[in-house]
Amino acid sequence: MTAHASYQVPEPWTGFQSFDETSNPDVGQERCASLRAWLKAHQLDGFLIPRSDENQGEYVPPHAERLAWLTGFTGSAGLAIILQDEASIFVDGRYTIQVKEQVDTNVFTPRHLIEEPPRTWLTKTLTANQTLAYDPWLHTISEVRALRKAAEDAGAQLVPVDNNAIDEIWMDQPTAPIGPVVAHPLSLAGEDSATKLKTVSATLTDKGADATVFTQPDSIAWLLNIRGSDVPHTPLPLSFAILQSDGTLSLFIHPDKLNADVRATLPSDVSIHAPSEFNTALMALGDKGATVLLDPAWVAEAINSLIENNGGTIVAAPDLCLLPKARKNAVEVEGARQAHIRDGIAYARFLAWFDRALAAEESLTEISVAKMLETIRAASGALKDISFDTISAAGPHGAITHYRVTHKTDLPLTSGPAFLLDSGAQYEDGTTDITRTLAIGAPDDELCTRNTLVLKGMIAVTMARFPKGITGGHLDSLARMPLWQNGLDFDHGTGHGVGSYLSVHEGPQRISRTSTVPLESGMILSNEPGYYKENAYGIRIENLIVVRDAELVSDGDRPMFWFETLTLAPIDRRLIKTELLTEQERDWLNAYHARVLDIIGPHLNDADTDWLKQATAPL
Amino acid sequence: MTAHASYQVPEPWTGFQSFDETSNPDVGQERCASLRAWLKAHQLDGFLIPRSDENQGEYVPPHAERLAWLTGFTGSAGLAIILQDEASIFVDGRYTIQVKEQVDTNVFTPRHLIEEPPRTWLTKTLTANQTLAYDPWLHTISEVRALRKAAEDAGAQLVPVDNNAIDEIWMDQPTAPIGPVVAHPLSLAGEDSATKLKTVSATLTDKGADATVFTQPDSIAWLLNIRGSDVPHTPLPLSFAILQSDGTLSLFIHPDKLNADVRATLPSDVSIHAPSEFNTALMALGDKGATVLLDPAWVAEAINSLIENNGGTIVAAPDLCLLPKARKNAVEVEGARQAHIRDGIAYARFLAWFDRALAAEESLTEISVAKMLETIRAASGALKDISFDTISAAGPHGAITHYRVTHKTDLPLTSGPAFLLDSGAQYEDGTTDITRTLAIGAPDDELCTRNTLVLKGMIAVTMARFPKGITGGHLDSLARMPLWQNGLDFDHGTGHGVGSYLSVHEGPQRISRTSTVPLESGMILSNEPGYYKENAYGIRIENLIVVRDAELVSDGDRPMFWFETLTLAPIDRRLIKTELLTEQERDWLNAYHARVLDIIGPHLNDADTDWLKQATAPL
Repeated sequence: MTAHASYQVPEPWTGFQSFDETSNPDVGQERCASLRAWLKAHQLDGFLIPRSDENQGEYVPPHAERLAWLTGFTGSAGLAIILQDEASIFVDGRYTIQVKEQVDTNVFTPRHLIEEPPRTWLTKTLTANQTLAYDPWLHTISEVRALRKAAEDAGAQLVPVDNNAIDEIWMDQPTAPIGPVVAHPLSLAGEDSATKLKTVSATLTDKGADATVFTQPDSIAWLLNIRGSDVPHTPLPLSFAILQSDGTLSLFIHPDKLNADVRATLPSDVSIHAPSEFNTALMALGDKGATVLLDPAWVAEAINSLIENNGGTIVAAPDLCLLPKARKNAVEVEGARQAHIRDGIAYARFLAWFDRALAAEESLTEISVAKMLETIRAASGALKDISFDTISAAGPHGAITHYRVTHKTDLPLTSGPAFLLDSGAQYEDGTTDITRTLAIGAPDDELCTRNTLVLKGMIAVTMARFPKGITGGHLDSLARMPLWQNGLDFDHGTGHGVGSYLSVHEGPQRISRTSTVPLESGMILSNEPGYYKENAYGIRIENLIVVRDAELVSDGDRPMFWFETLTLAPIDRRLIKTELLTEQERDWLNAYHARVLDIIGPHLNDADTDWLKQATAPL
Repeated sequence: MTAHASYQVPEPWTGFQSFDETSNPDVGQERCASLRAWLKAHQLDGFLIPRSDENQGEYVPPHAERLAWLTGFTGSAGLAIILQDEASIFVDGRYTIQVKEQVDTNVFTPRHLIEEPPRTWLTKTLTANQTLAYDPWLHTISEVRALRKAAEDAGAQLVPVDNNAIDEIWMDQPTAPIGPVVAHPLSLAGEDSATKLKTVSATLTDKGADATVFTQPDSIAWLLNIRGSDVPHTPLPLSFAILQSDGTLSLFIHPDKLNADVRATLPSDVSIHAPSEFNTALMALGDKGATVLLDPAWVAEAINSLIENNGGTIVAAPDLCLLPKARKNAVEVEGARQAHIRDGIAYARFLAWFDRALAAEESLTEISVAKMLETIRAASGALKDISFDTISAAGPHGAITHYRVTHKTDLPLTSGPAFLLDSGAQYEDGTTDITRTLAIGAPDDELCTRNTLVLKGMIAVTMARFPKGITGGHLDSLARMPLWQNGLDFDHGTGHGVGSYLSVHEGPQRISRTSTVPLESGMILSNEPGYYKENAYGIRIENLIVVRDAELVSDGDRPMFWFETLTLAPIDRRLIKTELLTEQERDWLNAYHARVLDIIGPHLNDADTDWLKQATAPL
């Protein structure tokens, strides 16, 4: 905690990340009993409690943390199904350990979301004529379709309820956030909102629809060039919007979120409405027999019903903002570059401090290191938030893919041979996400070999060139082949899309064996292969990359894309076995490190520059 | 034509490949007129003429070559649609040039099967209340569904007819073949037919079906351990079969095809019926309300209708023989190895002859070389057929992906810098398929560079290791990345499945960006990246590979698959730029060539051994 004295840290600095244990398994029994009483009073046999809110985002505001309130489980995805004599909580592979620590397993039976899907379980468990209730605002159209079929296969019924059961029994439920909205200036957005509205509404006409409903706040943020502050780590304005094919848009948002200055930046075709008017507007679409485009994977079933039950027709298609938002324009890509230089400066300072602190045998822990990284990032004065809770994972914690440190789990950094640090920042010009794996002490041969295999995969993706039509599903194997050659693998995708001062997890592009979305110029992705040895250590090396058009090399060449690397931070040389790299791979690494030194070096003080020089020396 | 004098060639040797020009565009006008008269007489507005027969295979017997008879077009896929004032022929990208040479374009308008699909064209072209007729035996369930929708979108009707219009106007139509069937012995099949019937009928029960209909002759051949001789180059017994969930099977086949010896090899659960009894049997399935599993991608719509219209229920699922047939057992894999050694001996003899003949400035042509290759293969005494018409393509012909030489097109070998030769053999123990690209004269730098890039892709696929669940879609990029890095690509899949003394093109496994079938142990695939420079030359390097379980290298390893290379033939060293290969790639090539010399060398005479030694010398 010494070396950052020279950086200007905002005071008082409270930090964006809480390391408190927020979960309390003891509440489960009582709350579950209270829910069952409610069900009985309403003559219902069961209730579905998903983690999602009505905007279906990764982060939900406190009042919508219904699953956590009921069960204690704080993971980012899950579903509880409460029947009178059964209570199950379904979570995916990331959370199978966490769920057992966070919920009272005498009350809730943890189940695997993929291996024993709720559908299958429901069909097996429900009995004839039972009624299973759900809040149609918290489930997507596709979800409800599948769950309804499952219930009906058992002779039971899936019934929507107007009032969410949890909201009725949760006495001290917080109120919905009214985080202020700010304008996202043209100098960062690169395209004005009026133009975006025009383009998107033209697509709407092409699809034969009269209107569409946007429910993903990052779609609305992108379309209107605004950013919000309703949820942690992502500048989302929680809201809904209806776009008509004539280009007019109705935005349904708490009026206190929008001050006059921000309203003045919105195109004249945008009208502001209170959220309470949203239902009426949806019913009106139905009344006039409109054909409405909805994304069944993201839009709440309630919206579908309100339109369809009133006479409207639904056209199923992906959210029309998804692809244009994913294809960053030249201004956004340049913003991302600037954000990554700023982040790279902070990261080099942090790494230099880290090495000195380790050498000085300071007693570092997962929390102290995460705090220091945040503090140094904040010193730039441009940090708006971290882009997700930092994964600061010493030794064995590194092997838990979505580890999140709390005061209860906080390990000394010296708990294993490697320290895995996955973190990111929100700047107005761009969102960052970087993982480095750092040597703690003298690494052994196995660790260095496996780290080098991971690095080879990361480089293989980085160096790829590929034509139009190629998806992340076609490239995912590149990241794994060096591991596969040695009988190893990792159990997560290679990369996710990243927003432009928006969500750090942004679709539709991904690098994953199941991805079917063609990669296009301007798409930003993470490239983060890993390797995890249970109870020992985790390795992950992550850079952000952006798809770019390649120049044609010679006559008769076909157009190709390539990846420009945005992230600028040294990759720990102490964990690399040079003899396992091909000449091309070594050349790439040396050129990357030279670029990091060249761009970041001039911004550092002398001590940090010296550190960076050795950290980026050619191999 | 000198060097093979020492090989024992069967006499008289007539050859399996015809190089005659079979197409005659002049007949189109008259035959089309006669078809239109038939339509008028039957009060129909149009008729569909696909290339397929009722078994939907790649090769069709002469009497079923209805598309070729009507239009002159002899490609392996296509569809003609004849209306009173319009005649269109739809072919895919392989045949866009060929179709213009083979049909009278004053009569038939060639259209692109993919860019302007028949569905789209029909909806645009048909007018209200028109009736478009089709033979329901020649179109799959999926096809008819799509075409019916297209017709109905135009307000027209798609109507099945009992008698095929072409059969009624084709005066000298040949009769259906009655090629003798032979038993495929257990020593080659590796599993007896009774066991296969038991396993497949158990799957049928698992799927909740009472019966299934097999219409793909290679499924029937695999299931009953028989081989036939009804079509060229593939030992298919054209027939149909109905399998009941109790394991009994009714085979519908011309009785003259099966002699008593072959009948005696069939399991007792198999009964033989004349083809004329097939319809009655299908209707009987309907009558008793059976649930029948049909593969909509392969089964003729007539079969679906006969069952459904009589009260049966259809379950759509892939042909139950597809996957077990694709996963070759240990005996079949060992058979493939032996077939490839035999083929490799012939191929080395051929290559040695080729180099000597070129050096002696003999006047080689595409046909003379193809004939010599076939002759040398036949000399083993084990050649049952070639596995497809040899692609013998000098210079610019190499850039035509599915070039098939005729006396009219027969070029001297010296017509370009490279000679592309894609050929294969049918042996009782296995089917082969090999492509080599051979230098003609002194190759220039561009040709060698591009050939080396193709080779690098071929090696990358060969050296892949991968876990369960990985498909050819995940591996296809490996074959292309070296080309992509240089702005190049090729427009065909990287590899197809290959049968065991069955079809050289066998599903469902493929190496292609659209493949979603997980690769499994025992699957045989081709690995054949290429590069094509229009009007100049073509490059393709093809080996067959078989998926095998890898041994675990160390504790904690995950199970992986690897590819064993079956093909044993030198790859032309004169076209390889060693400096473009990584050390690993060079090691692979040298080890492969050492293996070829080791296995094939001992079977050659001294002159050929000397040739092979230099052709496989380390790089």
